[in-house]
Amino acid sequence: MKAQGVLVWLTGFSGAGKSTIAETALQQLQARGRLAYVLDGDRVRKGLCSDLGFSRDDRAENVRRIAEAGLLMADAGVVVLAAVIAPFRLDRDRVRARAPRGRFLEVFVDTPLDVCEARDPKGLYKMARKGLLQDFTGIDSPYEPPLHAELVLRTTETDALGLAQRLVDDIERRLSSSP
Amino acid sequence: MKAQGVLVWLTGFSGAGKSTIAETALQQLQARGRLAYVLDGDRVRKGLCSDLGFSRDDRAENVRRIAEAGLLMADAGVVVLAAVIAPFRLDRDRVRARAPRGRFLEVFVDTPLDVCEARDPKGLYKMARKGLLQDFTGIDSPYEPPLHAELVLRTTETDALGLAQRLVDDIERRLSSSP
Repeated sequence: MKAQGVLVWLTGFSGAGKSTIAETALQQLQARGRLAYVLDGDRVRKGLCSDLGFSRDDRAENVRRIAEAGLLMADAGVVVLAAVIAPFRLDRDRVRARAPRGRFLEVFVDTPLDVCEARDPKGLYKMARKGLLQDFTGIDSPYEPPLHAELVLRTTETDALGLAQRLVDDIERRLSSSP
Repeated sequence: MKAQGVLVWLTGFSGAGKSTIAETALQQLQARGRLAYVLDGDRVRKGLCSDLGFSRDDRAENVRRIAEAGLLMADAGVVVLAAVIAPFRLDRDRVRARAPRGRFLEVFVDTPLDVCEARDPKGLYKMARKGLLQDFTGIDSPYEPPLHAELVLRTTETDALGLAQRLVDDIERRLSSSP
């Protein structure tokens, strides 16, 4: 097992394909002998961030805590795949500023909102449109796409397996060229 | 590298020897091919828990967040050594309740308060006695020793190297007997 850590943040709308790509990349990384882990936004909200809601402040704190936990894991030698919307540029930039150089990769899972809403895998867009969910990203809360992501993955052009492969290749290339 | 995780919590007074034992055990675990990591209470207070103070509520939240981060790391396959006072039994029992069976070890670094105060490696007891630090465990805030710790380490009887060895042997024994 190679113990070389990095925090890879997959950002994008709900339903963009973040978790699917992360889980597929996880298997590929493990097959290559990497210790890897998916930090899933939904799961973390039941544990580390169980006291937080979806207000602007709480979203910032949610991203901050996931980043701090993820950076500890990366420091321990884990390739961390955080699949978390993190809609605000400021919050993501703060993560980048906290990470040691080269230990944070911002990956934009660039799926247009209308495609995400048409997929609606958890039925959340339908609920948000009915007003049953507040502050839902893309509906009544903004999403600020990355300006300088290390990688952009377009799920409308390539399938999850191909995108995960591209992500893993990118991670491996960066890890092998850093100390 | 063997990726089998567990959250080992070293509890005890400030100056009891928690960090020293944890750092020594870390080296021994790494020499055995384990992926291990020290979650240091002081360091975490500058990151994951930077917004928290030392009130009863904040101490509980501090322990809760460290536990959640530590359990994520353990789930990823890391042997996590949390060197954190965690003075209240209730808070530690909550960590145990959150952990999968056999994935939490409570280790009591049992150094008497007068010995810790005589050592005073960071000069904190002196400051607390002068009233310059509030809610300092052992001075004006209680410490509730574990009733059922998996392991008790007495620094007045054995040196840090010997205690770390005992800790590592115990961790290895438990990991090898669990799936």
